[in-house]
Amino acid sequence: MEQKAATATASPNIAFVKYWGKRDERLILPYNSSISMTLDDSLNTVTSVLFSKELQNDRFFINGEEQELADKETAERFGVVGILRRMAGNGEHALVVSRNSFPTASGLASSASGTAALVFACSKALGLEMKARELSIVARQGSGSSCRSMFGGIVMWKRGRKEDGTDSYARRIASERQWPDLVDVIAIVSTERKRVLSRSGMRQTVESSALYKARTKFAESNAKEMIKAVKTKDFAGMAGIIMRESNDMHAVMLDTFPPIFYLNDSSKEIMAAIHELNGSMGKIVAAYTFDAGPNAHIITLRENEAAVREALRKVQGIKEVKTAGIGSGPKTLPESDSLIDAGRLMPKS
Amino acid sequence: MEQKAATATASPNIAFVKYWGKRDERLILPYNSSISMTLDDSLNTVTSVLFSKELQNDRFFINGEEQELADKETAERFGVVGILRRMAGNGEHALVVSRNSFPTASGLASSASGTAALVFACSKALGLEMKARELSIVARQGSGSSCRSMFGGIVMWKRGRKEDGTDSYARRIASERQWPDLVDVIAIVSTERKRVLSRSGMRQTVESSALYKARTKFAESNAKEMIKAVKTKDFAGMAGIIMRESNDMHAVMLDTFPPIFYLNDSSKEIMAAIHELNGSMGKIVAAYTFDAGPNAHIITLRENEAAVREALRKVQGIKEVKTAGIGSGPKTLPESDSLIDAGRLMPKS
Repeated sequence: MEQKAATATASPNIAFVKYWGKRDERLILPYNSSISMTLDDSLNTVTSVLFSKELQNDRFFINGEEQELADKETAERFGVVGILRRMAGNGEHALVVSRNSFPTASGLASSASGTAALVFACSKALGLEMKARELSIVARQGSGSSCRSMFGGIVMWKRGRKEDGTDSYARRIASERQWPDLVDVIAIVSTERKRVLSRSGMRQTVESSALYKARTKFAESNAKEMIKAVKTKDFAGMAGIIMRESNDMHAVMLDTFPPIFYLNDSSKEIMAAIHELNGSMGKIVAAYTFDAGPNAHIITLRENEAAVREALRKVQGIKEVKTAGIGSGPKTLPESDSLIDAGRLMPKS
Repeated sequence: MEQKAATATASPNIAFVKYWGKRDERLILPYNSSISMTLDDSLNTVTSVLFSKELQNDRFFINGEEQELADKETAERFGVVGILRRMAGNGEHALVVSRNSFPTASGLASSASGTAALVFACSKALGLEMKARELSIVARQGSGSSCRSMFGGIVMWKRGRKEDGTDSYARRIASERQWPDLVDVIAIVSTERKRVLSRSGMRQTVESSALYKARTKFAESNAKEMIKAVKTKDFAGMAGIIMRESNDMHAVMLDTFPPIFYLNDSSKEIMAAIHELNGSMGKIVAAYTFDAGPNAHIITLRENEAAVREALRKVQGIKEVKTAGIGSGPKTLPESDSLIDAGRLMPKS
C-alpha cells in the first residue's frame, strides 16, 4: 500500500508591519495588510504528516506531547488538515508529528512556522499540486500570520476586500537573495508561555480599543511605505517603520480593556538601547520589534550585528541572544528525516 | 512700609480624564477637556510670596534650593508672577519660597500644586480680587493641569475653543462635600525624577503619534460621560472611565516616537491586582490611574481602602502606600506660617 506521507520544514516570520485584529474570525481575515521577513532554518518547525486508513482518528503531537484536538485553539489550527483533505477528496485520518527548535508560545511565532510546515507537508502527502499563494490561503485559516511563512524573503499578507477571503493571501515583495544580509538578532528575555494568547487578545482589542481604527489606517499606510523602502533597499526608512509599527501595535494592546501587556522592563531597556545605538552611530542601523511577547527582535544588517550584540550587553534580564538570517521558505525533507514511525503509526521515539 | 506678602497652600490633583497635549504651546491650551479630583492637604505645597522694592531681582526657592530662572521650564512656570504683577500694575521684584510635602517631578503632580499655590499667594500678596475661574486661567499658563487645583472637589478643565484661551478654564463639577468618601490610595514605586518631562513629552506625542487624534476625541467623550457619572455618584461608571483614560493616555505615549514610558513592571502588576480585586468583589470597587510616572493612584471609596491596601500587598516594588482624601482647594495661611524671613528677604532657615 502506497503511503501518503511527507515531511516539511518551515520557519517563523518576524513582522515589520504588524497583524493584530481580524475582520472575520472564522476565515481569519485581517483589518490591515502586514509585512514580514521569513527567518532562515536556525529557527524552524519540522512537521511529518501521514494519512492512513489504519488510523482510528486524527492525532497531533508537538514536541513529543499529544495535543487535545477538542481544544478550540488546537482544533482551529488543525483545521487546515481538514481543508486540504477535502480538496484531495481523501477520507483518511491523519497522524501529525511536529517539532519546534524554539519555545512554543513565547512570542517566537511557533504557530506561524508550525502551521506553514503542516500545510506544506499535508499538501505534499496528499499529492496536491498547489501554488504557494493557494497554500497561503489555506495556512491563513489555521493561523493568520502563518500565511506569510509560505514564502521566503520579505512577504506581504494582503488585507483583501472580499468576504470569502480569496483575495487575502501572501505574496513575496523581495526574495531572500535580494537582501541577503538582513538579520534578526533575537534577545530572549522570557521563555514563559504567554498569559494572553494572540487569538483572544486581538479580539479584545478590536472590541474595546478606542484607538484601533486609527491603528489599522496607520498600518495600511505603513505597508505601502514599507514596500517602497524594501524595493529601494532603504534600510533606515524600513527601520523607522518597523519600530513605529511595533510601538503602535503595543499601544493598542495597552488601550485594550482590560489592558494587554507583552512588553516588560527588559523589553523597554532594549528599545532604549537601540535608540541610543542609532544615536551614537549617527544613522539608523537597527530597529527593534516585538510580537505578542517580551522577546526583542532587532533587525539589522550583518555588518552591524556585532554592534547590536554589544548594545544588548548592557541590558538586564536578557537570557540568550541568537541571530537568524533571512530565509527561503518551506521545504520538503527526505523520508529519512520523518518524525513518524510508519510501522507503529506513532512518533519516532 | 506695608509689606506685600502672603502664604498659601494648594494640593495636587489626580486626573480622571487625562490632559496630554497642547493645541497652543504659549497659552497652554489643551486638545481635550480633562477632569480631576483635588487631593486634601495630606499632600500639599506651601508657597510664600513677597514683593518688595528692596529685592534686586526675582528669586525662587523650592524645597530649600534656589531655582534657575533662566531655565526655560522654570521661567514658564514663574511666568504667572509676571502676569499677576502686570494685572496689579506692580513693578517690584518677587521672592517666592515653596515647599512640597512629596517628591518633586515623580509623577505626583508637584507642578500643579506648586503653580496653584504660587498663583493664589501672589494674587493675595498683590491685593488682587479675582475669582477662582480667573485665577485658573492664570495658573493654566504656568502649568496646564494646575488650573484644576484652583478648586476643591471634582474639577473640569474646559478645553475651550477661543484662540486667546479665555474660555479654557477650570470649573467645579462637584464639591468635596458631595462625595466626601472618595479617596486616592497612592502606591509609590519610584521617587526618581522622571526622565521625560511632561511638557516636552506631550509635544512629542502631538507631533508623532498616529493615534493622537483618536485619543483626543475619546477623551472629550469620556469627559462628558464622567460628568454624568459624577453627578449621579455612579462609582463603577466613573471607575471604568478612569482606568480606560489612564491606559489610553499611556498608549499614545508608547505610540510617540521615540516612545515614552512611564509605567514599569510594578505599575503593570498593580493594574492586574486591581482588575483581580474588582473581579473577586463581583463589582468595580477601585480604579487605577497613572500620571506621567510609574506611581499608582487607586481611586476608591473609604469603605474599600483596606481591601485596596490588601490587594497592593502582593505587588513587588511598592516602596510606600499613602492615602489622600478629596480636598477643598487652595487656602491662605497666617503670617506665622510664612516661609520667608521678611527682615533678611530670604527663606527662613
